[in-house]
Amino acid sequence: MKSADPERYFIIVPDMFGNGLSSSPSNTPAPATAIRFPDITLHDNVAQQHRLVTERFGIEKLRLAVGWSLGGAQAFERAAAFPDMVERLFTFQSAARTSRHFHLFFDGVRAAIELDTDFRGGFYPQPPQNGLRVAAPIYAAWGFSPAFFRERLDETALGYASFDDFLVDFWEGWFLRRDANDLLAHLWTGRHADISANDLYRGDLGKALAAITADTILMPSSSDLYLPAEDVAREASRIRNAELRILESPWGPVVGEGMNDADTAVIEQVIYDLLAR
Amino acid sequence: MKSADPERYFIIVPDMFGNGLSSSPSNTPAPATAIRFPDITLHDNVAQQHRLVTERFGIEKLRLAVGWSLGGAQAFERAAAFPDMVERLFTFQSAARTSRHFHLFFDGVRAAIELDTDFRGGFYPQPPQNGLRVAAPIYAAWGFSPAFFRERLDETALGYASFDDFLVDFWEGWFLRRDANDLLAHLWTGRHADISANDLYRGDLGKALAAITADTILMPSSSDLYLPAEDVAREASRIRNAELRILESPWGPVVGEGMNDADTAVIEQVIYDLLAR
Repeated sequence: MKSADPERYFIIVPDMFGNGLSSSPSNTPAPATAIRFPDITLHDNVAQQHRLVTERFGIEKLRLAVGWSLGGAQAFERAAAFPDMVERLFTFQSAARTSRHFHLFFDGVRAAIELDTDFRGGFYPQPPQNGLRVAAPIYAAWGFSPAFFRERLDETALGYASFDDFLVDFWEGWFLRRDANDLLAHLWTGRHADISANDLYRGDLGKALAAITADTILMPSSSDLYLPAEDVAREASRIRNAELRILESPWGPVVGEGMNDADTAVIEQVIYDLLAR
Repeated sequence: MKSADPERYFIIVPDMFGNGLSSSPSNTPAPATAIRFPDITLHDNVAQQHRLVTERFGIEKLRLAVGWSLGGAQAFERAAAFPDMVERLFTFQSAARTSRHFHLFFDGVRAAIELDTDFRGGFYPQPPQNGLRVAAPIYAAWGFSPAFFRERLDETALGYASFDDFLVDFWEGWFLRRDANDLLAHLWTGRHADISANDLYRGDLGKALAAITADTILMPSSSDLYLPAEDVAREASRIRNAELRILESPWGPVVGEGMNDADTAVIEQVIYDLLAR
């Protein structure tokens, strides 16, 4: 991110558990390997990040907690768990709690992977490639937006010759590069994401949101089907210093991944604005 | 439908091919049985319906062509293929052409069913129940809407004790009662639904829509994720006598299935209005 200038800011980008770099099903020795890797919550991630920031670096204040999608959910969790520490909060295409509706989406992707006989209950000698391939269209239908496909941005913006090319190269490619258990670990974290699912707030989302004191901007995508702007508006209304800015774009939930310059510029601008005030 | 009074109107409700009652994979003898059943288009359905109506009943004018979802797509096809015959047209939660975006949804459901080893390429000795069960959450995530789940209508309106009960009883139950090949036949028809995919219009959707002369009302659901009101508005704008009426409801695309009285009453009213004028 251009807006996060390492000459001016001390930038910390922790990897999530389960992503294949941090402790994950694919890199953890037995007995906690593969499908035996524990379920990891937002709270677990942020608790360890907090130790990193405070114990390793001795930092007491964070000028900005920022994140996209599940990264934004962690920034939310951080701002709710350590309100005195987080001065500014910016999440884009992120929710403080995954909706009930969206549980179904996660369940479908998971079930498809587990259905592959090669999955073998999570102890697979070779990757369950067919299950991962089936996950691709399920996920892809949520990943962009009706407008994205109506405007044929898969062809004009991403340069694919056809819809099938896009599905195979972009989506199947994405899934086939992932370790299935790592992916399932992330899906579990996403499905259960809830900044109030911890001892501090005991499931009371209103209380967790009300605890956030950071100068906050929440930015949904106007075309995100799984996290409608309306849902983000509801969360914003329960945070005392929160502003809602809807990113008008046909790129759906992936808008924050940096695939198109116009939308990325909008996101960068929010970061500039927030850091400047 | 109360609005369709059999004392006043001659009502014809043809079953679609592939639904298990009309010719379908599950009831057609070899060699065209099971997965060998031919792919059936909207055009194929309406061509046979046309023969029924004209050759069997000797009808020359249809006062109203009406349908929900894929039934509405057939009404669309009829109005475009036989404009002189269809005086009024009402489709709810229906498209004249399935969007590219929505191809992905159909592909995911299909792929999940085919992934079940019991499917055996479509010649299954016993139903591929695991594949059908995986199809349930994939479909369910599109079947209602974020607002439906936010308002917990699965519990308050449909009376389920929990989200899992709803998924298992409603969605898995729905899928497990279906023959997999019949279901795949319908998915194929839905994925390829396009009133211009025939010799008359040769893929020119604008031409097919412009050919419709019926007094038309198109009614999308405000909360339908797979057929956004915006898409229906685009189709309405290309039909000369079409009016768009958005059904404001949290019930998503299933709103036309008669599960809630308030929305059903709105749909009935349109039929009354159209028949009266």
